[in-house]
Amino acid sequence: MSVTTKATIASFGGKLLKLSHTAKTTNCEMNFNLYLPPQAFANKKVPLLIYLSGLTCTADNCSEKGFFQHGASKKGIAVLYPDTSPRGLNIAGEDDAYDFGTGAGFYVDATKPPYDKGYNMYSYITEELPKTVFESFKDQIDASRVSITGHSMGGHGALTLFLRNPGKYKSVSAFAPISNPINCPWGQKAFKGYFGEDNQEKWKEHDATELVKKWKGPLNVLIDVGTGDNFYQQGQLLPENFAKAASEAGVTGVNIRYQADYDHSYYTMATFSDDHVEHAAKYLFE
Amino acid sequence: MSVTTKATIASFGGKLLKLSHTAKTTNCEMNFNLYLPPQAFANKKVPLLIYLSGLTCTADNCSEKGFFQHGASKKGIAVLYPDTSPRGLNIAGEDDAYDFGTGAGFYVDATKPPYDKGYNMYSYITEELPKTVFESFKDQIDASRVSITGHSMGGHGALTLFLRNPGKYKSVSAFAPISNPINCPWGQKAFKGYFGEDNQEKWKEHDATELVKKWKGPLNVLIDVGTGDNFYQQGQLLPENFAKAASEAGVTGVNIRYQADYDHSYYTMATFSDDHVEHAAKYLFE
Repeated sequence: MSVTTKATIASFGGKLLKLSHTAKTTNCEMNFNLYLPPQAFANKKVPLLIYLSGLTCTADNCSEKGFFQHGASKKGIAVLYPDTSPRGLNIAGEDDAYDFGTGAGFYVDATKPPYDKGYNMYSYITEELPKTVFESFKDQIDASRVSITGHSMGGHGALTLFLRNPGKYKSVSAFAPISNPINCPWGQKAFKGYFGEDNQEKWKEHDATELVKKWKGPLNVLIDVGTGDNFYQQGQLLPENFAKAASEAGVTGVNIRYQADYDHSYYTMATFSDDHVEHAAKYLFE
Repeated sequence: MSVTTKATIASFGGKLLKLSHTAKTTNCEMNFNLYLPPQAFANKKVPLLIYLSGLTCTADNCSEKGFFQHGASKKGIAVLYPDTSPRGLNIAGEDDAYDFGTGAGFYVDATKPPYDKGYNMYSYITEELPKTVFESFKDQIDASRVSITGHSMGGHGALTLFLRNPGKYKSVSAFAPISNPINCPWGQKAFKGYFGEDNQEKWKEHDATELVKKWKGPLNVLIDVGTGDNFYQQGQLLPENFAKAASEAGVTGVNIRYQADYDHSYYTMATFSDDHVEHAAKYLFE
């Protein structure tokens, strides 16, 4: 449970901590970043927003380019930036592609060898990492108020973790989420590799479009998708499938904003991160 | 004079353009980025803020990590991000160090061979690049309203270009500027290489602390320096020398803010860039 502090960086009146710990679920040392807003240093426990990153990213990219700290500093919300996969497990082939293995954990617990040894990002993000953070920062962070968001593969992670765990998170939002992975090349490759080709029931358990069909009540999700996003244009994201499934299931509160010309990059997150922090704040402080 | 558009990226309601042109002063193809705020697309000419980057940076770093677009979008100011040196001139030794040659043009016109062939960042930034931008974006940018800012080596650039050219820029600000290069290792190495060791008069012509002694009237400069900045601690920046020289010369309007714990990174720019845009806006819209 011990956490190593690698750097403490002043940012928007608070501190961005670069941290690492030895994780059991992923069987390796994991880096993560935690932003503590100024309010956390004023004897006040703050709620937590978990931001899940996309393919190829580490804990660093969004903390440098996403500007969540700007909004989080104003609202008084801590932001947790986990890594996107285990690293250095020395599994044959794990470094061969940008969209599978290292940097591409897809927020599932792999069942297929050899990836079942450590590629357990679902358990890591839902259980081990927050437990570690809540214990290490028990005076700063209120473990009872947590929201989740993410980008691309991390948007898939945010939606599926929220939908699989009613009550665990106060709210969810996403940028350019992979919304129907069982029907897009990225998702099919990942699920085949982590679950096996024939395990279709398992695939559905981690598909937001399948999961939303069973959701009860309003979802109150904010999703931003750029119309200039090449991966959206290529059919990797499929937010329309998610919207259709939600609508047919009578799930309300699905706010998908198609942002004209915006692309798949951090410039999009930077532009709209304030809105997503505001969305989370509405439920974290209600 | 022709400009090539390599990318157009939506950012904070406006567009970040990744551009390049063949520059005569630097004798090579130069990349630069230009942010046009939403107001520039509404038949309204906007003023321009030039941001000069520090050692090792390209035109990209600050446009990704500096958060200037956030404030510029609100105020209606275009932001120009130039590169930090010529590239690919094939001068022996130009790639040997991070603090001299490529990525380290120091915003001077070199007089010493072989760097006098192309290392003319002073003329490039004060004349050729803005002329190119004003011609190419004459319907979007008001060439009569330009301010300047920068970080570290770019802070040196902003201060010296402003002080050497009264009336050319409406205002100046800087982050962690190399404020007295003739008295710090970075500056001494650069000026020795670009001007020669014996050309001390030339050195002084590009030293903000020397130049401020001759300034007439208020300077109205905003400078942010982090107390956790290792280069500040090592005596590379020397803002106190600049402040003392200004004070002794009776130059008013020198606002140096020592920001507790902030470091030399883009996290500092991101935190305070809104303030620097606000500072520029005060003079660009007066």
